[in-house]
Amino acid sequence: MKERGLLIVLSGPSGVGKGTVRQAIFSQQDTKFEYSISVTTRNPREGEVDGVDYFFKSRDEFERMIENNKLLLEWAEYVGNYYGTPVDYVEQTLQEGKDVFLEIEVQGALQVRNAFPEGLFIFLAPPSLSELKNRIVTRGTETDDLIENRMNAAKAEIEMMDAYDYVVENDDIQTACDKINAIVLAEHLKRERVAPRYKKMLEVE
Amino acid sequence: MKERGLLIVLSGPSGVGKGTVRQAIFSQQDTKFEYSISVTTRNPREGEVDGVDYFFKSRDEFERMIENNKLLLEWAEYVGNYYGTPVDYVEQTLQEGKDVFLEIEVQGALQVRNAFPEGLFIFLAPPSLSELKNRIVTRGTETDDLIENRMNAAKAEIEMMDAYDYVVENDDIQTACDKINAIVLAEHLKRERVAPRYKKMLEVE
Repeated sequence: MKERGLLIVLSGPSGVGKGTVRQAIFSQQDTKFEYSISVTTRNPREGEVDGVDYFFKSRDEFERMIENNKLLLEWAEYVGNYYGTPVDYVEQTLQEGKDVFLEIEVQGALQVRNAFPEGLFIFLAPPSLSELKNRIVTRGTETDDLIENRMNAAKAEIEMMDAYDYVVENDDIQTACDKINAIVLAEHLKRERVAPRYKKMLEVE
Repeated sequence: MKERGLLIVLSGPSGVGKGTVRQAIFSQQDTKFEYSISVTTRNPREGEVDGVDYFFKSRDEFERMIENNKLLLEWAEYVGNYYGTPVDYVEQTLQEGKDVFLEIEVQGALQVRNAFPEGLFIFLAPPSLSELKNRIVTRGTETDDLIENRMNAAKAEIEMMDAYDYVVENDDIQTACDKINAIVLAEHLKRERVAPRYKKMLEVE
């Protein structure tokens, strides 16, 4: 029987750069993760591609997925848009022994934590709240009200850090990627995962 | 107040290459660990230097250290020789916020686990028991009886794996070093260590 893969969940406040860090991780040659593409009803940002960054859906389409149990793992409404994770792909890939990488909003991550407590939950944190504000403003795609909403949401989300296993500060994209890779490598070396293999070896000899 | 350093304990069966891996880690430029030099009554092997690899002592000297509470953290008799860790250096260095690296025998590691349950316990494992035997033989410094003793001890020690947090296979020295570095980096990113810093930041703003 194949050893089950790890479910890696990268989350954190809106605007912290989850998407950028995720793209950087997957642009590196030696990545061994399988990326689980989320479904969303929000508009694509510049450069985002349907079926690569997200599956972009209408609200009607998204609600039909909920009804058909396609988003059992998690879905959430966030600042007026739906986000969700198609469960079939995740379950199948873990069973194949591959690690699955989710990049999702905090609300969704908390739901995944309930469904998959054995997952690896990484919180991507802003170097400071003021820098978070700068980043949202310079993205230039949001109104002032939205920015204010996001700041308030972010403060609440930072308090949600307690639901995570690890905290990685996104002060530099490459450093953040290196840290995430180290966390996943360490997780694979945990005694609970490795010891059974050795005990089997001892029995054979 | 300075954040307390991590106590990193590298251990594993005799002959698995603990000393070699430790030397490789400390020969790398970016090592941030402080090495805690053990005390032993065994004879120096070729290339080993007193005060660098070990403090080499007589049995009388070692027993006086026990009496004077200098080895409270751990000491053990192993295949006819004493091994121990001077406690004062470890405690002082952790208080300075630096990570302390111990490379010790399994018996000693179990004692440290009792004294410092918050330590990071890494088990260095042989790729296979047969390869372990090869390594001991090719070292060429032991008699056949000693080798037999060590094999039996090793089998028992592998069953002690359960007392450790992580298992790193020593199939390649550089890979083993990379894994140990990843484990320590991940440990520093654990939410329990990082979250208090962020909560403080939130209060300030």
